[in-house]
Amino acid sequence: MDRYTVISSDCHAGLPPEQYREYVDPQYREVFDVALPIQIEKVKEATRKFLVADINHEWRKGRDDALSGAWDHDQRCKVLDADGIAGEVIFPDGITEMNMPPFGAGISLPTEEIVPDLQWAGARAHNRWIAEFCQMAPERRAGVAIVPALWNVGEAVKEVKWARQHGLKSVLLPVCWGKQAAYHHPKYDPLWAECQEQDLVINFHSGAAPMEDYADHLGMMGIYISEVAWWNARPLTFMIWGGVFERFPRLKVAVTEGTSIWAPELNELWDFRYEVTHFSSKLGDYRSHLSMKPSEYFKRNIFLGSSCMPRKEADMRHEIGVKNMMWGSDYPHPEGTWPYTREQMHETFDGLPEDELADMLGLNAARVYGFDVDKLAPIVARIGPEKSTFRLGAA
Amino acid sequence: MDRYTVISSDCHAGLPPEQYREYVDPQYREVFDVALPIQIEKVKEATRKFLVADINHEWRKGRDDALSGAWDHDQRCKVLDADGIAGEVIFPDGITEMNMPPFGAGISLPTEEIVPDLQWAGARAHNRWIAEFCQMAPERRAGVAIVPALWNVGEAVKEVKWARQHGLKSVLLPVCWGKQAAYHHPKYDPLWAECQEQDLVINFHSGAAPMEDYADHLGMMGIYISEVAWWNARPLTFMIWGGVFERFPRLKVAVTEGTSIWAPELNELWDFRYEVTHFSSKLGDYRSHLSMKPSEYFKRNIFLGSSCMPRKEADMRHEIGVKNMMWGSDYPHPEGTWPYTREQMHETFDGLPEDELADMLGLNAARVYGFDVDKLAPIVARIGPEKSTFRLGAA
Repeated sequence: MDRYTVISSDCHAGLPPEQYREYVDPQYREVFDVALPIQIEKVKEATRKFLVADINHEWRKGRDDALSGAWDHDQRCKVLDADGIAGEVIFPDGITEMNMPPFGAGISLPTEEIVPDLQWAGARAHNRWIAEFCQMAPERRAGVAIVPALWNVGEAVKEVKWARQHGLKSVLLPVCWGKQAAYHHPKYDPLWAECQEQDLVINFHSGAAPMEDYADHLGMMGIYISEVAWWNARPLTFMIWGGVFERFPRLKVAVTEGTSIWAPELNELWDFRYEVTHFSSKLGDYRSHLSMKPSEYFKRNIFLGSSCMPRKEADMRHEIGVKNMMWGSDYPHPEGTWPYTREQMHETFDGLPEDELADMLGLNAARVYGFDVDKLAPIVARIGPEKSTFRLGAA
Repeated sequence: MDRYTVISSDCHAGLPPEQYREYVDPQYREVFDVALPIQIEKVKEATRKFLVADINHEWRKGRDDALSGAWDHDQRCKVLDADGIAGEVIFPDGITEMNMPPFGAGISLPTEEIVPDLQWAGARAHNRWIAEFCQMAPERRAGVAIVPALWNVGEAVKEVKWARQHGLKSVLLPVCWGKQAAYHHPKYDPLWAECQEQDLVINFHSGAAPMEDYADHLGMMGIYISEVAWWNARPLTFMIWGGVFERFPRLKVAVTEGTSIWAPELNELWDFRYEVTHFSSKLGDYRSHLSMKPSEYFKRNIFLGSSCMPRKEADMRHEIGVKNMMWGSDYPHPEGTWPYTREQMHETFDGLPEDELADMLGLNAARVYGFDVDKLAPIVARIGPEKSTFRLGAA
């Protein structure tokens, strides 16, 4: 094979808001009709307040067709082909501020100012659509089901079964749990068991953070972007110390678009707390239920959706874990590599050894999400980036 | 001078709980009498549950006299002399689970399950006592006033004035703010102004974390000790982005007993968010109110109380900031270096150049907290660690 099999571990798709109607359970359609204009107005308000409308407008010029790939099959295939991407993992929220599923079921999965039953209804509407959308190119698309598991673990278990039956490959869980139980609570064990059994990857995708702390004062956005990756990785600390990977050794968790640069230090911190007890022995036995060091669980069970991977993270790949890193393009978000993916790849990856590059660009994601690399081969042969164009280096 | 001037940036003192009575405002003494047995019972319960009573009991054997230095002047002088420590910064909570000020005014300064007026009353009782205690050896002791500023900034400003008038050198603010406003809120500006004016160091000391997230499930203590340093440093992110050090360029903040290992990466993250806007330009202008990079404020305004500094942090001193690091012993806590401080110092500092060692062991703390090194000189001449016993290295 003279081309790389590229799988983006982080892409997004979503319908224009009004089109979610037919995917919503009939009993919620009346509420949907009332909520739709409110949702659209709220998004507009946020766009005025936090998103620079001008920049977005400028960025969108002449890209309407390509951006409609957020929900249009043919356009999406064109965009991915042009970017050299054979396969992709598809999260909700197509275009940053435009394609959110209804009822607060978007990627941030808030716990405040939402009605749990409605959030579930919005999640299911999106899951139905994304399952259909992925079936239009099943070898290329690994869909992520939205699962607001905090409220009702029984419903979450059912949704995991439904997701697997309908060909989805992963479940998105809330990053922040508000006043609900965190992920070391034993009530989530049936969910972990089901995800392990069905081989569905649990996903945490960055976006959520405690906005109530940031309020609306000078500096709030700087604080948000400085903290958001920490909040995204936080569930790992709860799952590792809670013994989740001890009880469910085949469970896979992906942390997506939350940078990867923190991984070595966080692993070192966890291991230090596990191994050096002088500073903490007064706190009692907090580690005998773990048979391995935290970093050993990380290596085995945790994977990183490294969207728009910067050169620095590629250089740190051995510290982070070269088998744990999965490149991603973040299409169609403006912060992503699209439509400059091919150029961007050289900036990040020139000088790396071929096998490590192959792992990070696609083979790791194929193993984690269960892509069939043989089925992708004809697409790769047509659109994959040619290996000869990368300057290679030693391991 | 052939000996190092050693100043511990992190020591603790507190009265046996019943002895706080006479320092409490008269109108709160009846409540004090009711609350005292409840407080003692709660501490006992926590000791049974989270602290290994056996280890503490074992550790305390034969050390009763030395531990009573938590509130006894003569004993304290003996202990510090034996450890080679000339000066010290003194926080509340003498012995981990025994000497907490009343009404929830201990070092964690919780925002839940407390009555703000009572927390203030408890804080003032401790402040009165620690001011007296420091006056018994004013050249050696920099006392830290407890200031529960979240509830009432006007009261906080008054307490800062009181603290300065009574010879205290620093104010301890809550690390976690619960549902109150975070430290980028402009309501705190009068407090920052007063601390800058009075040259009192603002202190965040580790201990607090959102215990409600940890609840009482398997792994909770592992999660707590993995996160607690992050919570302790979190106020910095709010103050930097909120422009506090832009408006108050002479303000000094110390982050104490929260490790220092995170500082280089956190600075890099802040600066990246400040300088590289591709990933965040859609969020609008969040940086034009800052005339410097976040790491420049850090270098100028932020200092680290590096309790029980491990060798690794000493090795990282140039990345962390050799002028920002202040060694500490954490006496009388069991996780501290006492009573093995002299041996511990060699483990951490052998092989370092003399001037850097002098800075980290005491001169930085002298500059930050305003110790008069000349007044300490006779004590140093008697008890300070001899420079010749350290193996020196190049810068």
